[in-house]
Amino acid sequence: MSLVLAVDVGGTTIKAEIADESGVVRCSGSVPTPYGAAAFDAVAALGTSLIASCAAAVTSAGVIMPGIVDPVRRIAVYSANIGWSDLEAGLLLDRAWGIPVAVDHDVTCAGWAEWATGAGQGCSDLAFVAIGTGISAALVSGGRLLRGTGSSQPGEFGHVVVRPDGPACGCGARGCVEAVASAASIARAYCAVTGLPAAGALEVELAAAHDSRARKVWDDAVAALADGLAMLTALLPPERIVLGGGLAASGSFLLDPLTVALASRVRVQPVPELVTARHGTRAGLAGAALLARQGGAGTAIT
Amino acid sequence: MSLVLAVDVGGTTIKAEIADESGVVRCSGSVPTPYGAAAFDAVAALGTSLIASCAAAVTSAGVIMPGIVDPVRRIAVYSANIGWSDLEAGLLLDRAWGIPVAVDHDVTCAGWAEWATGAGQGCSDLAFVAIGTGISAALVSGGRLLRGTGSSQPGEFGHVVVRPDGPACGCGARGCVEAVASAASIARAYCAVTGLPAAGALEVELAAAHDSRARKVWDDAVAALADGLAMLTALLPPERIVLGGGLAASGSFLLDPLTVALASRVRVQPVPELVTARHGTRAGLAGAALLARQGGAGTAIT
Repeated sequence: MSLVLAVDVGGTTIKAEIADESGVVRCSGSVPTPYGAAAFDAVAALGTSLIASCAAAVTSAGVIMPGIVDPVRRIAVYSANIGWSDLEAGLLLDRAWGIPVAVDHDVTCAGWAEWATGAGQGCSDLAFVAIGTGISAALVSGGRLLRGTGSSQPGEFGHVVVRPDGPACGCGARGCVEAVASAASIARAYCAVTGLPAAGALEVELAAAHDSRARKVWDDAVAALADGLAMLTALLPPERIVLGGGLAASGSFLLDPLTVALASRVRVQPVPELVTARHGTRAGLAGAALLARQGGAGTAIT
Repeated sequence: MSLVLAVDVGGTTIKAEIADESGVVRCSGSVPTPYGAAAFDAVAALGTSLIASCAAAVTSAGVIMPGIVDPVRRIAVYSANIGWSDLEAGLLLDRAWGIPVAVDHDVTCAGWAEWATGAGQGCSDLAFVAIGTGISAALVSGGRLLRGTGSSQPGEFGHVVVRPDGPACGCGARGCVEAVASAASIARAYCAVTGLPAAGALEVELAAAHDSRARKVWDDAVAALADGLAMLTALLPPERIVLGGGLAASGSFLLDPLTVALASRVRVQPVPELVTARHGTRAGLAGAALLARQGGAGTAIT
């Protein structure tokens, strides 16, 4: 069975695994993401060690990363979180690993995996929204995954403004969906209100059952997400919206109120179905494995 | 030279013309749009009279209409403005005119015309925004015009909410782009502020030079448009945005402040170029003529 190396370069962690055609993982590993050019060395070293530790031959690799990525030229154009730019990632990793390496955008590939083999199967119009430290989307319209041009990336849903007087966003604007509803923003808002030390979004969710301050932070996030998803639906009516990323692990605690809030906001278009990702937080690695199998270096997703 | 019949069914007026392959108009006509099923009879009668008045043979027709349209089944699924639903427009007009009739969505076809032969030529990522009585958009992503499914229509940009506490919109929501920035909303806001009798958006534009109330109404509309276009740009980064419809006739009076306002709002993505439509308010008829030539009945735009 042919084996592929899948690598998901995140802002916090680099995750990698070697999997067979059935998706069975043969070996896996992760390392913290160093900032800047050192992140590349960490990716290369993690891949090299996994390939070495695997008894059978690995035939190709897929590496996904945040920010602006040019999948045709296989260049990491820019990522503020990782701190690299104009890095010839594909070419350098080909050399490091001795196998063809395909490079692409992380959320696009995660959405592709959900569309091809997950909770979005069979939809010709789909939105995949990853809610984690940041918020981003992959969009399918008319049976086709919308792709970037190498200098822009469709689906920057996190930077749709829903609260013009709201909290400052890292992008420079105020009240972006991401500034209110990302896991990081939820945790930050709760700490600001309560004065408690840093908590995670999951702790806010748990506290919401008995703590009205936590409840309000959670409700604000749900309302901001619903406002943003209603706008997305006006422009690109998806028949289904798949929620992924860490926050989707909240399940019905997120899905139930968001479903009600979205239905009350959508006009003109049919109300999209709202579901959580089948691959969970592994959607990125599933997409990277698909990317590795899709073809050799430079292959764009079609 | 082969001649085609192009018909643009608007909420106020039905416009039709017979044109040759170079776009030279042989004859044209228009009638007010009656409400409800009578609108269909008016379309049929206008087309019949033009075909009869034309010396040479007309080989095919393209009919464009607002609302939800199924171009494959050639059905006018629903239009609130015209007041018809589930009308087998293609089949009935084939019979009435004795030529193959293609049926499609008005703003989609107007955007197609601007993309194929107008101000959007050569763009692989484009937004066409028609600002008239209402506001709607046609979207091109990755070199492909985004199409609906027959029950939903991409590009309902007019119903993106930018002023949650703003004026009521016909769709039932508050503060949609259309409720602040359409020609009708601009005129309505000015009348409400001044107590003057009904004016058009053009009169508000003219008054803005010396009347601070008109200036504020115009500035509010520009800001709402800029907010909406910035959201659209986050999701579907167009390299260029083409403004069409009646309000685009304002030219630099709209374009100049909107360009500044958009540039100040766009983050994460490249700032799109902003231009006015080359076909002006005739973009719809140009699209209907393309539709007629694209093929026979039931042909979807590709």
